[in-house]
Amino acid sequence: MTAEVVPIPRKKPTLDPMLALTANGMNAVNSVILDRMQSEIPLIPALAGHLISGGGKRLRPMLTLAGAELVGYTGDRHYKLAAAVEFIHTATLLHDDVVDGSDLRRGKAAANIIYGNPATVLVGDFLFSRSFELMTEDGSLKVLKILSGASAIIAEGEVDQLTAQRQIETSEERYLGIIGAKTAALFAAASRIAAVVGECDDAQERALDDYGRNLGVAFQLVDDAIDYDSDAAEMGKDQGDDFREGKMTLPVILAYSRGTESERKFWKNAISGIKADDAALQEAISLIDKYNAVEDTRERARHFASRAVDAISIFPDSKARAAMAEAAHFAVARGY
Amino acid sequence: MTAEVVPIPRKKPTLDPMLALTANGMNAVNSVILDRMQSEIPLIPALAGHLISGGGKRLRPMLTLAGAELVGYTGDRHYKLAAAVEFIHTATLLHDDVVDGSDLRRGKAAANIIYGNPATVLVGDFLFSRSFELMTEDGSLKVLKILSGASAIIAEGEVDQLTAQRQIETSEERYLGIIGAKTAALFAAASRIAAVVGECDDAQERALDDYGRNLGVAFQLVDDAIDYDSDAAEMGKDQGDDFREGKMTLPVILAYSRGTESERKFWKNAISGIKADDAALQEAISLIDKYNAVEDTRERARHFASRAVDAISIFPDSKARAAMAEAAHFAVARGY
Repeated sequence: MTAEVVPIPRKKPTLDPMLALTANGMNAVNSVILDRMQSEIPLIPALAGHLISGGGKRLRPMLTLAGAELVGYTGDRHYKLAAAVEFIHTATLLHDDVVDGSDLRRGKAAANIIYGNPATVLVGDFLFSRSFELMTEDGSLKVLKILSGASAIIAEGEVDQLTAQRQIETSEERYLGIIGAKTAALFAAASRIAAVVGECDDAQERALDDYGRNLGVAFQLVDDAIDYDSDAAEMGKDQGDDFREGKMTLPVILAYSRGTESERKFWKNAISGIKADDAALQEAISLIDKYNAVEDTRERARHFASRAVDAISIFPDSKARAAMAEAAHFAVARGY
Repeated sequence: MTAEVVPIPRKKPTLDPMLALTANGMNAVNSVILDRMQSEIPLIPALAGHLISGGGKRLRPMLTLAGAELVGYTGDRHYKLAAAVEFIHTATLLHDDVVDGSDLRRGKAAANIIYGNPATVLVGDFLFSRSFELMTEDGSLKVLKILSGASAIIAEGEVDQLTAQRQIETSEERYLGIIGAKTAALFAAASRIAAVVGECDDAQERALDDYGRNLGVAFQLVDDAIDYDSDAAEMGKDQGDDFREGKMTLPVILAYSRGTESERKFWKNAISGIKADDAALQEAISLIDKYNAVEDTRERARHFASRAVDAISIFPDSKARAAMAEAAHFAVARGY
């Protein structure tokens, strides 16, 4: 097997090949999701459904399905497992909305705003439990190990992010550690379990893990860039949320480290919350522009996307591999 | 094997035989707990340790150990699994404190008061994930099925309780359904998994499940009674919390259903939160006294404790069985 170079496509990359590749499978996954979010307690499907039917891209379960295509798996175990992955993600989003006190999620009122924090926390717990029920039904201890490990790492990353909040001294390395845990761990696990159901060898399993992990980092970097990109076309949550919450993301880290003394003073006041009003947000965006920090964040994302693409080059060329590669380029190009 | 009648002890029942029975094992469990609550993110062991070292009785892991003694299991798998049970319970308590907005837990400031809601939610998620890691390491899919199922049911019970909050019309049947889910499901699972590691037959597995479930109901009933018992010796959380939160528990359900028209009007206003100040709490306690609702709640608990004791009568008489029976009587006599 030779590593082939996958050229960066000239035209604007899209998620379309990935969507086409996984369309049938995603119908099966969505059936599992709808079926298993049910409960005799009506508030549970109502609250879960608010988020689940709220138009997320379901990228993570899609990775499991695409990975299964890539490795030539022809069974149906991955539908349930992909639904388990999406449940973990949904539980995390619900808890994040409580943690961040979000008003909006995917352009709609966040679940916590409509249903309150208590129910939002508990329905997150329910979905989390359901995801482990689904995995247990599948019966692979290897999958359980991968996803329980990823879940613990996600929680660690979220706590770490909380600890770094309002701390202007947060370094790029620490930030990469945080997003590697809070975002990329689930991308990696979602991809990796495709290799497990496909009974791949260790190298292939690692390759899928690497693909997912690097894609996850690229994805989060661009998400964080978009929050400061005045031209952003794609924005679900309120722009400037990260800024108002004093969340340390790469655009801020770069602008701060490249800034003058007086600019650094501005950042300290802004991130610590002393002065983080709309005027400060405008100032922040203009400083980030000045140092090209949004574009350079995308450049960092491009690096991780390339690593993702190269990771799966050990697999023979296929529709699946091309779709997964384009998805990585799409992750970087989003919001342009 | 003949069913033997275990007489209700004359002297005041204690947890001492249970504590003696499980003392060595609990050391092993506590080591696993301390070891596996660690993380490179210092906030995680700090917050988890605040609750874990806060002097809970660790009744649930104790049930796993006692059950293992009862069935003559001599291995060491149950230590890790008992720690997993305690992690699930701890995660639930952390989330409960956020859900209820608690100030106190086990007589100390609740974790959410010291560390804030965001970190408390996330560390709960971490412990929950860790519990599934521990189970996966053990490798029994049967245990995973029991505990993931119980976790989903706990979350359902908590949501159901939230839905019943401030609803004076909540019936005793619905209340029993709620505590059966939010409390007794984990007691049942903790006991049942002892039969799984002990490779018992189905009848023995069900017997341990029944023991735990009935004990859990008795335990919760008495907890709820204590909250309105002016003579209560044992109170970790603020007395009257349930009242102020408009939580529907059996003492209120009984006093309401037995009350006069004007008393029912009082209860409606109190539980709905229109008038739930200290004077109202005193009035509530005196109405509950008037209708003997604390003692009758204990009487209901006594019924479930008896069912718990009888459930394990299929096992031969042993120190373990006697300790478990006394624990059930203790559950009823607590707080006298």
